[in-house]
Amino acid sequence: VNPIFGEAGTTIFEAMSRLAAETGAVNLGQGFPEGLEPPEVVEAASRALREGPHQYPSMMGLPALRQAVAASSKRWLGLDVDWEREVLVTSGATEALADAFFALLNAGDEVIVFEPAYDSYMPIIRRAGAVPVPIRLAPPDWRLPRAEIAAAITPRTRALVINTPMNPIGKVFSAEELRLLADLMLAHDLVAISDEVYEHLVFDGRRHQTLFALPEVRDRVVRIGSAGKTFSVTGWKVGYVSADAKLLTPIARAHQYVTFTTPPALQAAVAFGLNLPDAYFDGLRADLARRRDQLGTGLSAAGFEMAEVAGTYFAVAPIEGLDADGDDLAFCRRLAIEAGVAAVPLSSFYGARDVRSHIRFCFAKTEATLAEAMRRLARWR
Amino acid sequence: VNPIFGEAGTTIFEAMSRLAAETGAVNLGQGFPEGLEPPEVVEAASRALREGPHQYPSMMGLPALRQAVAASSKRWLGLDVDWEREVLVTSGATEALADAFFALLNAGDEVIVFEPAYDSYMPIIRRAGAVPVPIRLAPPDWRLPRAEIAAAITPRTRALVINTPMNPIGKVFSAEELRLLADLMLAHDLVAISDEVYEHLVFDGRRHQTLFALPEVRDRVVRIGSAGKTFSVTGWKVGYVSADAKLLTPIARAHQYVTFTTPPALQAAVAFGLNLPDAYFDGLRADLARRRDQLGTGLSAAGFEMAEVAGTYFAVAPIEGLDADGDDLAFCRRLAIEAGVAAVPLSSFYGARDVRSHIRFCFAKTEATLAEAMRRLARWR
Ligand SMILES: CSCCC(=O)C(=O)O
Ligand SMILES: CSCCC(=O)C(=O)O
Repeated sequence: VNPIFGEAGTTIFEAMSRLAAETGAVNLGQGFPEGLEPPEVVEAASRALREGPHQYPSMMGLPALRQAVAASSKRWLGLDVDWEREVLVTSGATEALADAFFALLNAGDEVIVFEPAYDSYMPIIRRAGAVPVPIRLAPPDWRLPRAEIAAAITPRTRALVINTPMNPIGKVFSAEELRLLADLMLAHDLVAISDEVYEHLVFDGRRHQTLFALPEVRDRVVRIGSAGKTFSVTGWKVGYVSADAKLLTPIARAHQYVTFTTPPALQAAVAFGLNLPDAYFDGLRADLARRRDQLGTGLSAAGFEMAEVAGTYFAVAPIEGLDADGDDLAFCRRLAIEAGVAAVPLSSFYGARDVRSHIRFCFAKTEATLAEAMRRLARWR
Repeated sequence: VNPIFGEAGTTIFEAMSRLAAETGAVNLGQGFPEGLEPPEVVEAASRALREGPHQYPSMMGLPALRQAVAASSKRWLGLDVDWEREVLVTSGATEALADAFFALLNAGDEVIVFEPAYDSYMPIIRRAGAVPVPIRLAPPDWRLPRAEIAAAITPRTRALVINTPMNPIGKVFSAEELRLLADLMLAHDLVAISDEVYEHLVFDGRRHQTLFALPEVRDRVVRIGSAGKTFSVTGWKVGYVSADAKLLTPIARAHQYVTFTTPPALQAAVAFGLNLPDAYFDGLRADLARRRDQLGTGLSAAGFEMAEVAGTYFAVAPIEGLDADGDDLAFCRRLAIEAGVAAVPLSSFYGARDVRSHIRFCFAKTEATLAEAMRRLARWR
């Protein structure tokens, strides 16, 4: 047994969902939306599945979806992407990340990862033979610590991983931060794995920005998107990668041996979805901003204090002063059992599990679900 | 870029499908069925997709599917499998293989692989840090060479990979061969990754047999199955792993970080399919046996000689004496371009690409497709 996987536990997201199911808690833990699936996209998938084809599509993905990914990059970010040479479809963004790490890393490479970090990054980087080098962003503003990053770069540094909008803290990287990273990438010959699965969930008139749009580093960036987040169908497991062909080709080879391909009916429906008019995307953003505000109001009525959320469908709240004993995981367990609301501890996003200052709520839920959760929290406190 | 993926080419299966599309050749190359999808399973998927849920199911897979996998092992092989602790659903058998190799292997481990071998085994074994040790089966009867296997085992040998029924040669491992392997596994403390995706495609009254059914090695076997092959829906990418919890747990951790989960609607439909009455499975076998015979007759009329096919939907034919210059890849290209029929060269199933004696045809096609392909071959010769 390989120790990296032999010693891993069940992911906290699944663990909290199981606890919610067992306790009857309202599940604001694991990140998945409720009641937000666009019916026309679901209908497109159901129809495509009835009609077929049911066999392997091209290993790169359906041309229709790759074209839609390229067109969507043009529409929303002004980017020119060559769908034939620069776009790959994967079985979810998680697979895209694994493919990228296995394809681009070699034994002993160092990879800068910003914490709090999504929990699949580090195990896969390690299983790829490389060494994750965590750099911590700190509350309350979670800014990139320029000096620390520069100091962490060594001759073995090969890549950095960024996630913008950023789970769990709802941060959206600024133009200045991207510029800072681009300069370091050029100075030290690095590539960036850019996890942009929440690209469409950016609020209050902000715009999603990406390293991939900076011409000097465009050929060093692996940009990853997700239908699960964009169309609120996390179970479909359709993701996509855009990158210069020099990077995309080895990633496609990894994909070829990791899953080979992704269900064509779901790909066709996602292509349809990406081509929906702006109103769908604007509506989703507006909906989620409203739910974020509903969560913020409810939390504050219950004595919690929600941090600012610029993007994603997550919000963190500090637990200091909340009788949490500085143990965010124990606090989440208590919250599920005693209050009947499941959240996720911030410590799960740290390799060392030592930052226990916040818990995370997912607000991509119906108004009624959020209202019930807030009622329970208020009653419990 | 990692050299293992950086130096890999596009898989031969996709390459031949592209050539077939470009040349208008009848595609008997890449292994995917035509016209064999059971309509009730397709309908179940389409309905489940319309109704939802659309969000992450349990990372282990839907209970209904895991129960169906266990029940199916009982029904067809008399095996007792604990669905909760011993069954995992993956995004296809390819992912199951990758999860197993990444979870069970460590740097420097040696893994015995029988050639001809499916083309994803060796790159992933190498990317997992281990060393594939190929052992060749030889025509015409492709028997396991006991002495060679015993001689290849070293103190570093950790695992062996078997594929029964075996792609591309249509071999079904005998009870004696499984016994031989089980004895070696016990003597040398090995595990087996058993790729049984063609388990239901076994002809002429033979029965599929598995190492997993031998009590002494049951806790050393990772048994992999595939809805793609069992229900002729290769694009759905639903696979399943059965193994003792000691092996399954780390494989599930790998899965958790490689794809996380598999579309729930497709899982529900596959559960429905596995629970279909015997008539479905018997009918599929009978259908494919008929198509195999149609291919054999057609090939021989065209001057080819088809080898025996005990299982799978593939048949190999030797190309000696067929003006092939001993180059099976060039011969397949010529066949696609000049005759209008795509096949796959046997050399793609060897790490060294040096066994060029046969080409492979997929016979899971409609009668009309097979007839047209045979007409073209006969005309060309
Ligand atoms: C793959 S389960 C985790 C879902 C998610 O993205 C999150 O909760 O952060
Ligand atoms: C994943 S493409 C290959 C399909 C197949 O199993 C084969 O043709 O051998």
